[in-house]
Amino acid sequence: MIARESLRWNGWGRLGESMHMTRTREAAVLAELGRRLGRTLARGAEPVELDAIRLPPPKLAPDVLAQLRAACGEDGVRTSAFERVTHAVGRSLPDLLRLRRGEIEAAPEAVVYPAEEGAVAAVLRIAADANLAVVPFGGGSSVVGGVEPRTAPGQAGALALDTTRLDRLLRLDPESRTATFQAGVDGPSLEAALGELGYTLGHFPQSFEHSTLGGWIATRSAGQQSNGYGSIDDLLVCARVVTPAGVIRTLEVPRTASGPELNHLLLGSEGVFGVIVEATVRVHPRATRADDRGMLFRSFADGVAAVREVGRAGIPVAMLRLSDASETELSLLLRKDPARRFDPTATALSLAERLGYGAGRCALLYGAEGGDARQVAATMRRARNRLVRAGGLPLGRAPGRSWRRDRFRTPYLRDWLLDSGVAVDTMETALPWSRLGAGHEAILRALQGAVATHAGAGLAMAHLSHSYPDGASLYFTILYPLESGREIEQWRAIKRDATDAIVAAGGTLSHHHGVGVDHQPWMAREKGALGVEALRAVKRAVDPRGVMNPGKLL
Amino acid sequence: MIARESLRWNGWGRLGESMHMTRTREAAVLAELGRRLGRTLARGAEPVELDAIRLPPPKLAPDVLAQLRAACGEDGVRTSAFERVTHAVGRSLPDLLRLRRGEIEAAPEAVVYPAEEGAVAAVLRIAADANLAVVPFGGGSSVVGGVEPRTAPGQAGALALDTTRLDRLLRLDPESRTATFQAGVDGPSLEAALGELGYTLGHFPQSFEHSTLGGWIATRSAGQQSNGYGSIDDLLVCARVVTPAGVIRTLEVPRTASGPELNHLLLGSEGVFGVIVEATVRVHPRATRADDRGMLFRSFADGVAAVREVGRAGIPVAMLRLSDASETELSLLLRKDPARRFDPTATALSLAERLGYGAGRCALLYGAEGGDARQVAATMRRARNRLVRAGGLPLGRAPGRSWRRDRFRTPYLRDWLLDSGVAVDTMETALPWSRLGAGHEAILRALQGAVATHAGAGLAMAHLSHSYPDGASLYFTILYPLESGREIEQWRAIKRDATDAIVAAGGTLSHHHGVGVDHQPWMAREKGALGVEALRAVKRAVDPRGVMNPGKLL
Repeated sequence: MIARESLRWNGWGRLGESMHMTRTREAAVLAELGRRLGRTLARGAEPVELDAIRLPPPKLAPDVLAQLRAACGEDGVRTSAFERVTHAVGRSLPDLLRLRRGEIEAAPEAVVYPAEEGAVAAVLRIAADANLAVVPFGGGSSVVGGVEPRTAPGQAGALALDTTRLDRLLRLDPESRTATFQAGVDGPSLEAALGELGYTLGHFPQSFEHSTLGGWIATRSAGQQSNGYGSIDDLLVCARVVTPAGVIRTLEVPRTASGPELNHLLLGSEGVFGVIVEATVRVHPRATRADDRGMLFRSFADGVAAVREVGRAGIPVAMLRLSDASETELSLLLRKDPARRFDPTATALSLAERLGYGAGRCALLYGAEGGDARQVAATMRRARNRLVRAGGLPLGRAPGRSWRRDRFRTPYLRDWLLDSGVAVDTMETALPWSRLGAGHEAILRALQGAVATHAGAGLAMAHLSHSYPDGASLYFTILYPLESGREIEQWRAIKRDATDAIVAAGGTLSHHHGVGVDHQPWMAREKGALGVEALRAVKRAVDPRGVMNPGKLL
Repeated sequence: MIARESLRWNGWGRLGESMHMTRTREAAVLAELGRRLGRTLARGAEPVELDAIRLPPPKLAPDVLAQLRAACGEDGVRTSAFERVTHAVGRSLPDLLRLRRGEIEAAPEAVVYPAEEGAVAAVLRIAADANLAVVPFGGGSSVVGGVEPRTAPGQAGALALDTTRLDRLLRLDPESRTATFQAGVDGPSLEAALGELGYTLGHFPQSFEHSTLGGWIATRSAGQQSNGYGSIDDLLVCARVVTPAGVIRTLEVPRTASGPELNHLLLGSEGVFGVIVEATVRVHPRATRADDRGMLFRSFADGVAAVREVGRAGIPVAMLRLSDASETELSLLLRKDPARRFDPTATALSLAERLGYGAGRCALLYGAEGGDARQVAATMRRARNRLVRAGGLPLGRAPGRSWRRDRFRTPYLRDWLLDSGVAVDTMETALPWSRLGAGHEAILRALQGAVATHAGAGLAMAHLSHSYPDGASLYFTILYPLESGREIEQWRAIKRDATDAIVAAGGTLSHHHGVGVDHQPWMAREKGALGVEALRAVKRAVDPRGVMNPGKLL
């Protein structure tokens, strides 16, 4: 179960945790960012305290509360302000903006913590009878509004169904290399349970520390090392989902041709069909060796071609992550520590410049891991040779080390920048190789236009984070100065322009963040009107009274 | 377009094509089989001629025919006995039994050959208005009754919609390595079109020569070399499907997290939602080198463990196919040529026996292919080393050569055996590694019991044909003497026992044959009642009047 008391209620991650920058470095970064954004960055208004948030009193009738308590136990039904606020939003930029201003649009009437499948079914029944919506809530790290307590017209309110008490490892099948978990298990607990037995799932999305197995399945999550371990859709064998109409369970077999594969109705279902309570996943022997390194390319196009080649050669790397020129430059800025006299990276880069890796250069991270040191070394050698042949300049292990150190920490930067009035948002897509270069340029141009129009200034950059035989994902980051008092409207305008640009480039609405409420308006463009209608038909069949997570996805 | 005039109307494959055995070898095989089945096998009753089949006169009203002709052209609407009979059944054992006796349960009123997407949509409209069912028909090689012209209650008849005029390569994207075809293209035409451009799809199911891209997608087909190239679900990027309610099209992107992946509603849809008219698939550079070899194991368990190890070591073989002891022995019998004095395989096997590879021994085929001879050789070397370490005894290239020669020819054996009153049927499933051994034994025992009970005698055997990180498929073959006059009832009783045993072992109803009408009664066991209901809801949304392929799948 996630200990939410140890987490920031209005920001990312654990209390006391951060990007760990020195004060001097922080000041230098802010100064440089301010220069680029054309304004002096200073600490802005303090975010409000939790108890300053005015929540409407919970509207649950005593008998409904009693029924919920009968199903989930006394401690399994909570209505404190802390519980309601921490289950009122996810962790998108507008979520944080709202929390910091203390302006939550809606909060759940109560948070329920069922501890077994029967209790989940009971909650759905009670909610249907009491005319309440149910919002499945795992780690709560959605960045697309996927856990907002919305209600359908006529509903009296919403319950947040916190799945994180469903966190046990039910069985491990060493022969088949699969593990069955209750789906509310969070990333670190899942890896700890597997690690003790010598296994790993290998699924490490950036939200790893604050997300759950069920959430990964519900959002079609992709981990940072999906090249090696696969995305959650590759890792899922079968699942159990409690819907208002009963349980959907898929079969524990490696493959089936018995009609459409129902796992793929559950993957990406974002809680609109039911609550994922159990899942069997493919596991791997725990990696005891890992090697991650950097490489520099003269241009994004060169780097993209190199990434494609490594994949096509079948080299079993775990990760290939290519920053574009803007991101490469900004990450060098963030890395620079003005207090350090000698900076080996700076020296290497100035040498690189003389070799033609100057303006427009792009940094690639590549890595391999596994249980066999010789095999990891062989993979890294093969990858390095390919990459060098494709124009790469090796940067050694330092970039890999800092990636691994900070892989789950980058989101902390966002809160720190918000403190100084700078917004950070990310959007992502996937494109075929043949449209990746043009798509990158068009979307980047649109993002630059959007921040200029709606914020007067801003930075936009991207990296390629997941690659496939036929294409890759692009992950865009924007930074822009917040317009005080109009933060949400400003974000909405930028988001609209960004999403329009992604759709216009032929990219998918999301490679791994999901749809939630933020991307929902574009779903008919993505799936076609009839495709959406087909999914709505499934929804009606399993949730005829519209209890499950209204307003999301469909 | 498939030239059906050159094919056997009541058996497998091309006229004049066969397993190519000499007369003496045929006689020897029949004698040995007869001995095992406890009866003398002799040529039985001749199958009837096509013109002896009495078909009900087509019931289409002249104005419906005129509308269909307006949509598909004069030559695109056919009502000859040849067309109706060749589109009345697939190629399952009961299909052949019925054809040979001339007792077809139903025939389509007409066969339509739309040449473009608009014509497909028009046919669905005309059919809905005329109260007709539409049965999509590609290669017609279904072995589960997937193309039978069934009608829903109240429907006046069925049209077979032959897709094979939709057979053009629309575009090749060399950068993304994808190709877009009209989905009625058959295997050889697809490979010829790709081959000219230096590519291959690498999808070679046993029905390859007589099946289509759309059929592969509709049935979640798996090719013989799926270890290397993936199954059709791995190869599909996106598709267009014409349904009675409009077109469903999926996006041409390598991956998406925008809700449930609609490709997986189309994969395995068996024509009940609509007609797959177009698909984009991942292609590979054409293989110029292939190496396939044999290996012997002391037991099925040893062989299974070895297959699992090769997969886990990440060795990029294209195929791993392990026969159990019964299949190994029978395939040796089939291979034996009494006219040949010196049989190198026999010599090798008697040597093997002295090394402990005697009763219970199992033959494995493994192969690799690609464009790089050095890489193929390295893969085969790695595989060989792993297999030998796991107890394998190398049998060299001869078994590989005969597999490649006969890979699409084995089905011809069935017609030849039917001529002598011996039925051959196959059923297949997939299981996790941890349940594979017990499942193999239990299903085999059930099959032996079924043929003993319902045919008085019979043989049952199996091979493992496709493997995955967490399990593998098992493909069972049974041979039994036909009871003249009760062939269909006999088959039905055996099929029921076999399917019950597969389901009881926890296996899937089908790893790659599909559901059709033969497996439909078990679908609620496979997917759960609510899972089936969810798919039926999709069906109602896209086909509200129930035009598409009634009686199949759901």
